[in-house]
Amino acid sequence: MSSIRDKVAVIGVGCTKFGELYDMTYEDQVCDAAFQAYADANVDPSEIDAAYVGTYLPHAQGGKAGISLADPLRLYDRPVTRVENFCATGTDAFRNACLAVASGQHDIVLVVGSEKLKDRPGRGIPRIGHQILGKGNTAPGLFALAANRYMHEFKVGRETLAKVAVKNHWNGARNQLAHFQMEITEEQVLKAPMIATPFGLFDCCPTTDGGAAAIVCRADIASRFRDDYVLVKGAALAVATGRPYFDPTFDYVGFRSTQAAAKKAYEQADLSPSDIDFAEVHDCFTWTEISNIEDLGFCEKGKAPGLVEEGRTRVDGDIPINPSGGLKSFGHPIGASGVRMIYECVQQLRGNCGERQVKDAEIGLAHNVGGPGAVSCVVILGQR
Amino acid sequence: MSSIRDKVAVIGVGCTKFGELYDMTYEDQVCDAAFQAYADANVDPSEIDAAYVGTYLPHAQGGKAGISLADPLRLYDRPVTRVENFCATGTDAFRNACLAVASGQHDIVLVVGSEKLKDRPGRGIPRIGHQILGKGNTAPGLFALAANRYMHEFKVGRETLAKVAVKNHWNGARNQLAHFQMEITEEQVLKAPMIATPFGLFDCCPTTDGGAAAIVCRADIASRFRDDYVLVKGAALAVATGRPYFDPTFDYVGFRSTQAAAKKAYEQADLSPSDIDFAEVHDCFTWTEISNIEDLGFCEKGKAPGLVEEGRTRVDGDIPINPSGGLKSFGHPIGASGVRMIYECVQQLRGNCGERQVKDAEIGLAHNVGGPGAVSCVVILGQR
Repeated sequence: MSSIRDKVAVIGVGCTKFGELYDMTYEDQVCDAAFQAYADANVDPSEIDAAYVGTYLPHAQGGKAGISLADPLRLYDRPVTRVENFCATGTDAFRNACLAVASGQHDIVLVVGSEKLKDRPGRGIPRIGHQILGKGNTAPGLFALAANRYMHEFKVGRETLAKVAVKNHWNGARNQLAHFQMEITEEQVLKAPMIATPFGLFDCCPTTDGGAAAIVCRADIASRFRDDYVLVKGAALAVATGRPYFDPTFDYVGFRSTQAAAKKAYEQADLSPSDIDFAEVHDCFTWTEISNIEDLGFCEKGKAPGLVEEGRTRVDGDIPINPSGGLKSFGHPIGASGVRMIYECVQQLRGNCGERQVKDAEIGLAHNVGGPGAVSCVVILGQR
Repeated sequence: MSSIRDKVAVIGVGCTKFGELYDMTYEDQVCDAAFQAYADANVDPSEIDAAYVGTYLPHAQGGKAGISLADPLRLYDRPVTRVENFCATGTDAFRNACLAVASGQHDIVLVVGSEKLKDRPGRGIPRIGHQILGKGNTAPGLFALAANRYMHEFKVGRETLAKVAVKNHWNGARNQLAHFQMEITEEQVLKAPMIATPFGLFDCCPTTDGGAAAIVCRADIASRFRDDYVLVKGAALAVATGRPYFDPTFDYVGFRSTQAAAKKAYEQADLSPSDIDFAEVHDCFTWTEISNIEDLGFCEKGKAPGLVEEGRTRVDGDIPINPSGGLKSFGHPIGASGVRMIYECVQQLRGNCGERQVKDAEIGLAHNVGGPGAVSCVVILGQR
């Protein structure tokens, strides 16, 4: 086995506004994100050798198979594959695009994630927020089981969770593409209606429409397209059981899939957690961000609440987490989220993020969870 | 771009009995196929570096995401990706497994296709046979539009189509894994109830449960596992529009996606159609096999009916088509079919097929269509 480190470069990215996009179809989102990426990469669509589309919930006339990308973009006579891996769909589509380039078979590969959740109430919201995921539980309820165990184990209160939401909304308020561009207070988080104890409304990410795109190519030809291309240092995915909550080995305080994926990604990149300048992590709930920080190796298990309390995960902290606003504020259109994380990492590495710019950002990490906890994907990107 | 030719080897394959598998779940099928492949490849499950699962119709508690393979096989802490590309799902999962190996990132990769269609009438049969695919039409109805145009254009009668069904049932009757292991007569085909003119019941492939698996690895380590490994010469996929029947450039006599995928696969393999000793092609309907023979370059457009009439596509002909029995007789559990084609090609290249063995089989081709006609994947396999 040889690492894909530095074999693949990201030369362009695109992202729609995230939110309630009543005026855009799934296909509109694909086109908006992809054409931004074409322009960003200085690539003509005819140069795309292959493509991957990440979408979780297929809908009647779109979102299934490779044609859900090929038809809106008129990208025919080449391979287009649909990848689906729960909420980690977007990063897995990106990871497979990287493998396709590293294989030598394809030079320039497009990745698009797109999801419509808001305007199809029969198939969107209920299937995520309210759908019975297992043994009578829902997504907030399942994550809450772990959050409660964690909070008991490490003596953490809801105030600490609330600080994650406040921080991510502060970042998102400075992000023109974010779903919720508003700051919130700790008091608002704590007084919000309860969804599944300990998660109130502001502890949960929203239901969002959106699309994002990235273009990757062989690193040795990347400078043809732009000088400030970003290198893929590592891209690893790991599955755990799809029923972690009913697995007797599950300790309820962290995700084995994230730990395994992070370990492999660091090995591929020949880097350690201390080399990472910032991370976009899967904060589907406030507690998840805290747990992720530990599972990704930024501190020991049980120590992330301290980092949060001390403000070290803010944009001006020593390990900024979710400078984009995260799922919490940017939103979470399932198949798009992972590609959106790549978008944010690239913009941070290029130094384009204004008030929420991470200082001296040279290595960024994107971390996407699906499942819950069943699958995690970690991508490490670096300036060349 | 460099070809994946001879970089990847198939070292093991497995396949369940295809049919009405009321006694097997989706997960049972995954396990049966995968453990056959492990044994066939002399590989221990712990040696699998990554996996791909091909399934089209997700069901409530399985068939979605990588865990639909990882959970039944307890294959954790490594990447497992679900690929979906309509009826070409299985070969696309195989193609992506080959790219993952060629990338250098993974040495040994498992591919499983599994689909339950028979025991979920609300989500299986109606969604395929009766589902409205577009503008009020169904799968048989859409393919029939093209078949009628073709039959008018090239002066072909239903008797020629019937000969495809008779031939494929003859082959399937000699295949212990096939769904329908019975010979039929031309008269039976012609007198069967009409489904969508010109397709009677026996012109249509059945609705089937089943699973199939393959294990691929780096060609340079394949001899560790078995001497008679098979080399991947080419694996190409091409998309056309998802609405070929409403595309004004569609000529209704062949599929652009197959023509494009075949061209690329031959280029990768540095082979021409005359080098192919036999082919497993996507005979979802009898006419489709005729059209495929031409689109794959085995003869000019309009000439395949002659090959069929002369018996040249039989096992003892000069270009045997679907020695397995094809979708027509072997059955068509969507995500499994493409991997099942790889299974048959490998068994033919090993010389294991008894009465339906193709003589001196050294190069085989698998061809999978989804869409209808929206996506095609062509894989070329050869003896080392």
